[in-house]
Amino acid sequence: MTYRAPIDDILLSLNHGAGLQAAVAAGHYGDYDSEITAQVLDEAGKFASDILAPLNRVGDKHGIKLEHGKVTTAPGWPDAYQRWIGAGWNAVSGPEEFGGQGLPMAVNAVCTEIWASSNMAFGLCPLLTLSAIEALHAHGSDELKQIYLGKLVSGEWTGTMQLTEPQAGSDVGALRTRAERAADGSYRIFGSKIFITYGDHDMTDNIVHFVLARLPDAPAGTKGISLFLIPKFLVGADGTLGARNDIYPSGVEHKLGIHASPTCTMTMGDHGGAIGYLIGEENRGMQCMFTMMNQARLAVGLEGVGIADRAYQQALAYAQERKQGRAIGSTGTGSDPIIKHPDVKRTLLTMRALTGAARTICYSTAVALDIAARSSDPKVKAAAAARGALLTPIAKAFSTDVGTEVASLGVQIHGGMGFIEETGAAQHYRDARIAPIYEGTNGIQAIDLVTRKLGVNGGASVFTLLDELTLIVKDVEASNDPGFGLTGLRLREALESLDRTSRYLLDKLGSATNDALAGATPYLRLFGATVGGCALAAEALAARDLDGVSDPSRYVALARFFAETIAVQAPALERSVIDSADAVAGAEAVLSA
Amino acid sequence: MTYRAPIDDILLSLNHGAGLQAAVAAGHYGDYDSEITAQVLDEAGKFASDILAPLNRVGDKHGIKLEHGKVTTAPGWPDAYQRWIGAGWNAVSGPEEFGGQGLPMAVNAVCTEIWASSNMAFGLCPLLTLSAIEALHAHGSDELKQIYLGKLVSGEWTGTMQLTEPQAGSDVGALRTRAERAADGSYRIFGSKIFITYGDHDMTDNIVHFVLARLPDAPAGTKGISLFLIPKFLVGADGTLGARNDIYPSGVEHKLGIHASPTCTMTMGDHGGAIGYLIGEENRGMQCMFTMMNQARLAVGLEGVGIADRAYQQALAYAQERKQGRAIGSTGTGSDPIIKHPDVKRTLLTMRALTGAARTICYSTAVALDIAARSSDPKVKAAAAARGALLTPIAKAFSTDVGTEVASLGVQIHGGMGFIEETGAAQHYRDARIAPIYEGTNGIQAIDLVTRKLGVNGGASVFTLLDELTLIVKDVEASNDPGFGLTGLRLREALESLDRTSRYLLDKLGSATNDALAGATPYLRLFGATVGGCALAAEALAARDLDGVSDPSRYVALARFFAETIAVQAPALERSVIDSADAVAGAEAVLSA
Repeated sequence: MTYRAPIDDILLSLNHGAGLQAAVAAGHYGDYDSEITAQVLDEAGKFASDILAPLNRVGDKHGIKLEHGKVTTAPGWPDAYQRWIGAGWNAVSGPEEFGGQGLPMAVNAVCTEIWASSNMAFGLCPLLTLSAIEALHAHGSDELKQIYLGKLVSGEWTGTMQLTEPQAGSDVGALRTRAERAADGSYRIFGSKIFITYGDHDMTDNIVHFVLARLPDAPAGTKGISLFLIPKFLVGADGTLGARNDIYPSGVEHKLGIHASPTCTMTMGDHGGAIGYLIGEENRGMQCMFTMMNQARLAVGLEGVGIADRAYQQALAYAQERKQGRAIGSTGTGSDPIIKHPDVKRTLLTMRALTGAARTICYSTAVALDIAARSSDPKVKAAAAARGALLTPIAKAFSTDVGTEVASLGVQIHGGMGFIEETGAAQHYRDARIAPIYEGTNGIQAIDLVTRKLGVNGGASVFTLLDELTLIVKDVEASNDPGFGLTGLRLREALESLDRTSRYLLDKLGSATNDALAGATPYLRLFGATVGGCALAAEALAARDLDGVSDPSRYVALARFFAETIAVQAPALERSVIDSADAVAGAEAVLSA
Repeated sequence: MTYRAPIDDILLSLNHGAGLQAAVAAGHYGDYDSEITAQVLDEAGKFASDILAPLNRVGDKHGIKLEHGKVTTAPGWPDAYQRWIGAGWNAVSGPEEFGGQGLPMAVNAVCTEIWASSNMAFGLCPLLTLSAIEALHAHGSDELKQIYLGKLVSGEWTGTMQLTEPQAGSDVGALRTRAERAADGSYRIFGSKIFITYGDHDMTDNIVHFVLARLPDAPAGTKGISLFLIPKFLVGADGTLGARNDIYPSGVEHKLGIHASPTCTMTMGDHGGAIGYLIGEENRGMQCMFTMMNQARLAVGLEGVGIADRAYQQALAYAQERKQGRAIGSTGTGSDPIIKHPDVKRTLLTMRALTGAARTICYSTAVALDIAARSSDPKVKAAAAARGALLTPIAKAFSTDVGTEVASLGVQIHGGMGFIEETGAAQHYRDARIAPIYEGTNGIQAIDLVTRKLGVNGGASVFTLLDELTLIVKDVEASNDPGFGLTGLRLREALESLDRTSRYLLDKLGSATNDALAGATPYLRLFGATVGGCALAAEALAARDLDGVSDPSRYVALARFFAETIAVQAPALERSVIDSADAVAGAEAVLSA
């Protein structure tokens, strides 16, 4: 079945759950015209349904090929990519002075979800180009920007991010790729990188690689890493393509999922060294990477949302169509669609509730990052930056865990058919599995949350957020809407658990860091379930007040389901964080035998 | 990496967690000599490591082929199968009068885990033969037994179970395959079946199909189904093979996992009708199926345990070897193995704890089914049968959910390498995903638990079990072992939650069945987490008391980890069951938009 972007849900989430409307009204988006949002997203939805979704299974089946040093993508992919850039989709949030449309990142975040939902392997390509644009825009010289930035913004050329080496994964500082200074101010790069997404392909004339490498006199670890721009084909000052540069795909991975996205081993320096240009300063490459990291991590979180939504749409359609058995209380004759069975209904609700919560967490992150970039008020900027930094690991890890869980439930809804590749549910299950891994594993995100985000100013970012969420709970309670059931109570309990757990971790951070680290993953889940539950409640409240929402009680019911079956896990997660440190610390013997 | 059967853990679980030793001591196993258990399992472990494990990836890569109406298995598979039956592994629990070794089902349950762990796709073949043996032994005529049973017990021929048709999955009663009476007392079968595991293959000379079909004058639904034995090649009274019967593989599925196990569409009757022989009575086929269902469901649960254990072993080895970053407090120089990082440690503990709990639940089910079959005391027999019936859906569903969850965590531990097929972690993730689906989806298991097992005698089976588990908790508390941490408290809370939730569901079963059904899945999870937690605690207590257990405190630490991080979810699951009925009932609108 095809994909249809859930525009109504998306707009409610973006404008009211994530607060875009309020931010625009408060002037944080300058003269941005909110009317544009729906128009852009409608068009994005159409492009996704018409062009990208039909290629999803094609790409999965065909995969990619590496022959004679060149990667060929699946049939129809280069053409779809040309349509994509022709329609301007690559340039949505790009800087206007380089041909971008300058739309909010929040709007592009929705687009990212839509591309991932319709075709995750395709959407990955622009996702990386966007990171490259950000690095170049923030840190590149004017000359490099002049030559490369316009082409990257339009998508005429794509970008890659090259960090990983066999011994340097999560531990980027261990990388060994070598850079040598050349007489003309450029550099020669030697070495090899693995797991390079779209490291080579046949969709564009040129590819702009962003490669981390180490100068001979660089300090050890992350403080000795520099970032280089390495074009596949050298580019003249007038923009014409020149000689082939010494960077080649030397292998491609046979992966569990996203088969259509080439994952390359890249080799530099077999022919005298790849010509590279420094981005930013020598030995400051990690800072350049950090610039893009928030955005890239958020984008991967949105992949989680996208794949979850796709899996949900497919499972829902199947459950409405597939007939098995009689439901209790059924008044029809013959068998009922399986959606009539309470257990199937509960599964679908779980899928939808988790997806909705993850979506709003991601959009909220994007709105915060937008405000941090756009507001003219330094205090507003700083607060938004802190909020964006806090939410980023949650957006990444919670949403990608949700993507994997929901895709698995989607297989289950299909019964035996779910295990058959033709059905398509299995592809989502396979594709979804990478998102908790790349751009920093979810374990790394949880550690980032506990050690770098929670700890700032004695937990100020966290407690400010908790205060805001408490207001939502008060509104739920004040609504006296019986449709909310125990929503208010469960969310209040979740907020209390999150508050206590945060204080516990803050305390441990100073005194017993390993104890804090042992609870990082359940803490992140607790955070996601609490923020997500409050977000869905806020959307339900907004839906009740808005004109033109058909049957707002369904949003109330969804918020309730989340609160009563997912946010309700908060006290157990709290106990798990607080109790598990000793159990984890004492585990050596358990794991050694 | 290869597979090594965790014999120490298995024996502790089987003898002390699942109570085999006590049952033998009480005389329920007749003159069974407990010494044999360890010998058999040691040999099984060797066979699995040496013969089956090396073929696991081969089978995954090659898959199977259907050409000219014949299925060919992967290279090395027919030879391995011949070694398998040559070593007597197919006959472990078979009836002695037909050449079986008559060992307890509990011992064969361990073997089933070991085969699945080393090579799930291979292990599936004998798993189905075993079901066929059981149906034939319990319900077949003496003549049929004489001809077929010995060959099935030895494994010279394999068996299939053919229930599913496109419109008849969970709803078996909807099947349409047609049986006509022939003049000679046999039947002619016409129709087609889907999802038939090992429906055809090249590992044996003959295959004995067990097919559900409907006579022309049969009542509608499940009361009009009959079971037929249909050999691939007809067999003379002297056992010689005759003509090819009219049952052919007409298609094979392209599946997410277990690629080496052929999943066939079988067509009967294109050449005058497949000759079939009635098993049991006409229209009583469902009763024959129910005979085997407990055993088959338990076997699938053991697949969940097996794949979880394999995923754990592989992840553990990787985490011990892979070095990234410095652990806090590390005294070494350079990077540490990732197992030193608390978040990785916690993940591995979660994998091991879930696997151990599921294992003992499955073994306990097997011991109960053994006692029900073997005890000479009718009261003991009845109580054991009730226990086996109660535990079966939990063994199936909890363990296969665990299989999927643990395999996913196994991928995660490997980071980017986990997503690469060569690593092998991804195969476990793909293979594991079928187990929650076949032999009755886990949703069906949960419904079975609530409607058929909980409800018997006002919940007597459940409350008897809870009383027994309470004794374990008392022993934990009485041990005063500080290593148990909060184990006693958390398990007591879990038991209380399970008790209250059971009473709530019993009440709803009479008055509002759909409300009970809405909570079936979280109820099963609550049940599994509680029983599993108590089982690990019982094993820890036993390990403390046994001679020859090296470092028993590691079992205490594992029980503690499970209680504090998994059983602790019980109150949330309770609330989820009790609260979610309204949310699910009111969900139509949520899911329709």
